[in-house]
Amino acid sequence: MEKWKFQGNQGLKSSAVSVRGVFNVLMQSISKEKEVVHLCRVDPTDNPLFSADPVAAHAVSTAAHSGNFNGYPPTFGLPQARRAIAEYLSRDLPNKLSAEDVYVTVGATQAIEIILPSVFATPGANILLPRPGFPQYETRAALCGLEVRHFDLLPNSSWEVDIDSLEALADDKTMAMVLISPSNPCGNVFTYQHLKRVAETARKLGMFVISDEVYAHIAFGCNPFVPMGVFSSIVPVITLGSISKRWIIPGWRFGWIATCDPHGIFQKTGIAANIESYMEITNDPPTFMQVQINLSQIEGIADDVDFCVKLAKEESLLILPGVIVGLKNWLRVSFGLERSAIEEGLNRLKAFCLRHAKMSQQISA
Amino acid sequence: MEKWKFQGNQGLKSSAVSVRGVFNVLMQSISKEKEVVHLCRVDPTDNPLFSADPVAAHAVSTAAHSGNFNGYPPTFGLPQARRAIAEYLSRDLPNKLSAEDVYVTVGATQAIEIILPSVFATPGANILLPRPGFPQYETRAALCGLEVRHFDLLPNSSWEVDIDSLEALADDKTMAMVLISPSNPCGNVFTYQHLKRVAETARKLGMFVISDEVYAHIAFGCNPFVPMGVFSSIVPVITLGSISKRWIIPGWRFGWIATCDPHGIFQKTGIAANIESYMEITNDPPTFMQVQINLSQIEGIADDVDFCVKLAKEESLLILPGVIVGLKNWLRVSFGLERSAIEEGLNRLKAFCLRHAKMSQQISA
Ligand SMILES: Cc1ncc(COP(=O)(O)O)c(C=O)c1O
Ligand SMILES: Cc1ncc(COP(=O)(O)O)c(C=O)c1O
Repeated sequence: MEKWKFQGNQGLKSSAVSVRGVFNVLMQSISKEKEVVHLCRVDPTDNPLFSADPVAAHAVSTAAHSGNFNGYPPTFGLPQARRAIAEYLSRDLPNKLSAEDVYVTVGATQAIEIILPSVFATPGANILLPRPGFPQYETRAALCGLEVRHFDLLPNSSWEVDIDSLEALADDKTMAMVLISPSNPCGNVFTYQHLKRVAETARKLGMFVISDEVYAHIAFGCNPFVPMGVFSSIVPVITLGSISKRWIIPGWRFGWIATCDPHGIFQKTGIAANIESYMEITNDPPTFMQVQINLSQIEGIADDVDFCVKLAKEESLLILPGVIVGLKNWLRVSFGLERSAIEEGLNRLKAFCLRHAKMSQQISA
Repeated sequence: MEKWKFQGNQGLKSSAVSVRGVFNVLMQSISKEKEVVHLCRVDPTDNPLFSADPVAAHAVSTAAHSGNFNGYPPTFGLPQARRAIAEYLSRDLPNKLSAEDVYVTVGATQAIEIILPSVFATPGANILLPRPGFPQYETRAALCGLEVRHFDLLPNSSWEVDIDSLEALADDKTMAMVLISPSNPCGNVFTYQHLKRVAETARKLGMFVISDEVYAHIAFGCNPFVPMGVFSSIVPVITLGSISKRWIIPGWRFGWIATCDPHGIFQKTGIAANIESYMEITNDPPTFMQVQINLSQIEGIADDVDFCVKLAKEESLLILPGVIVGLKNWLRVSFGLERSAIEEGLNRLKAFCLRHAKMSQQISA
């Protein structure tokens, strides 16, 4: 047999204790005598007590049948969805969010996936995570080579943040802290006063706050839920959320990242640009072909990008330069549209080429 | 104003020429006089010529209304979906796939996101990408620190792979090559013979093939589409696919990774385990609380994991050890279920604790 060079990297596996792994060990330990009781990994949607509002299924069904939502969505989500989320979150915030503050994600899970590498690409950066916490933060941090430091949640103080340990842990490479509010796995709801202290401490330490609010408004006990964004004029806050928990439809995989930042600090520091460039996933159309530009026959055009910019300006015709697919001085032409539009486009392309052809060419043509 | 330490990393931005970025420059270049013709980034779903089969919308609507698919899906996708994809792909393959060979993803986009870091976590590894190609591979490779080497597709040989350049580029750190088949952006369909040569070359060079077949069965010209998996007994193949193109519903974001590997080489080399551990995203239930174990009052139990394993064995009661959320020697209890089940669980927990209590404790109890 051939020698294959490639091999897996067990490092990935050991990056975090996995809930699933432990769960499997426990399942194998069970004796057959008793009926199993699960006080672990309960999915509430398995339970008839918890069911989603039929309005949600109806909305999905209407959208699917309309045919209006079959195309690729814009990178940051449909504008109407971004607006709806901004309005929903703004109800509880003194500084209102706009649609541009909201990025739609595949559940809060993808929000975590996006936020960690986007924000922490700086070498040597570290992040403060709560202990106990949600293991996905550790896993993602390990995958993007980010150093993790843990601050404690205090069991004898209603699982509040140990503010002293925050101060002791942070250094000049500490970019942010994560708070899960209401808390998973502790289940407590942080008070207004405590969240304000956390915000003030984060400001003092020069880091921002990532507030994972997937359990927003699921508040047991007597403290009402207060979003961290309430303190965004003290410290810039990135809020993560989703429809999984409150609407009991985790399988639908819909979440968001919201930047609560009235002073525009994420813009100034480049964090917003990082999130956006990380989300910029380029999707390409299904039919296409390539046309090589013979620059020796054309005058006054430097390269494919210059060609396409001038073509857009002079002919209102949009063709992408080949360089985006790695082919300099080619054109990337898509023609997944009506014949008449293709003909119009090719006529304009021809007119443009004739106009820019070298004199000698024009005569011989 | 406070000094904020955190800052964006422009490195992310420059990691690839972005289609969207170029597109925006072109849009700004347009003069207002003419109506715009797009021969670039055409989304076929905008066009009434291309419309999805109503069967698809009907299936989604039924699933949403049934309430059966609201819960978190298993990490690798619903078994019935994995089975359906395996059967669909197997129609064209000599070595049939099983459900376990298929991993469901959020479009082929997420399949690319998963496959690159899963496979190339080895330091110094490189990957061979086609030029011209699909820019997302470059972007993802840059994000996971993977070296990229480009082989050419030959415009004068129907855009076939330059086999010589493959051989010249590969070294002992070359883990895999990517083929986009049918090709984006060239639009050609590779012949059976050519794909076989590619497979034999990959085998000789000790690398496997990632075959991006999002355009499977969209074959212009006279060559029929041949899946790379046909040659999986020569070289192990990872096939990426999605419903975006053939079913004209890219907005639905549904794709897959399929391992075509009759000799089980991905298992042996640990690649399959890497994909699986990368996909293992742990999702937690919405209601929970913590219980600290006082080990000084219990006999014969080493720690929280040991506690939970014995609890599962003796009482068929499943509770997760606190260590999974970073809290050693605590228990993580979820109670999002009927009161009677919670009571039954807590009774068993009590019985277990009493049975394992230290003698002195039992007497005082
Ligand atoms: C070659 C290639 N791979 C992958 C994709 C991503 O497709 P999906 O919509 O399934 O994410 C595209 C989309 O244009 C593509 O052209
Ligand atoms: C604290 C926390 N954050 C994020 C998530 C992920 O939620 P989603 O379903 O939106 O991906 C969960 C899910 O359990 C969670 O507990």
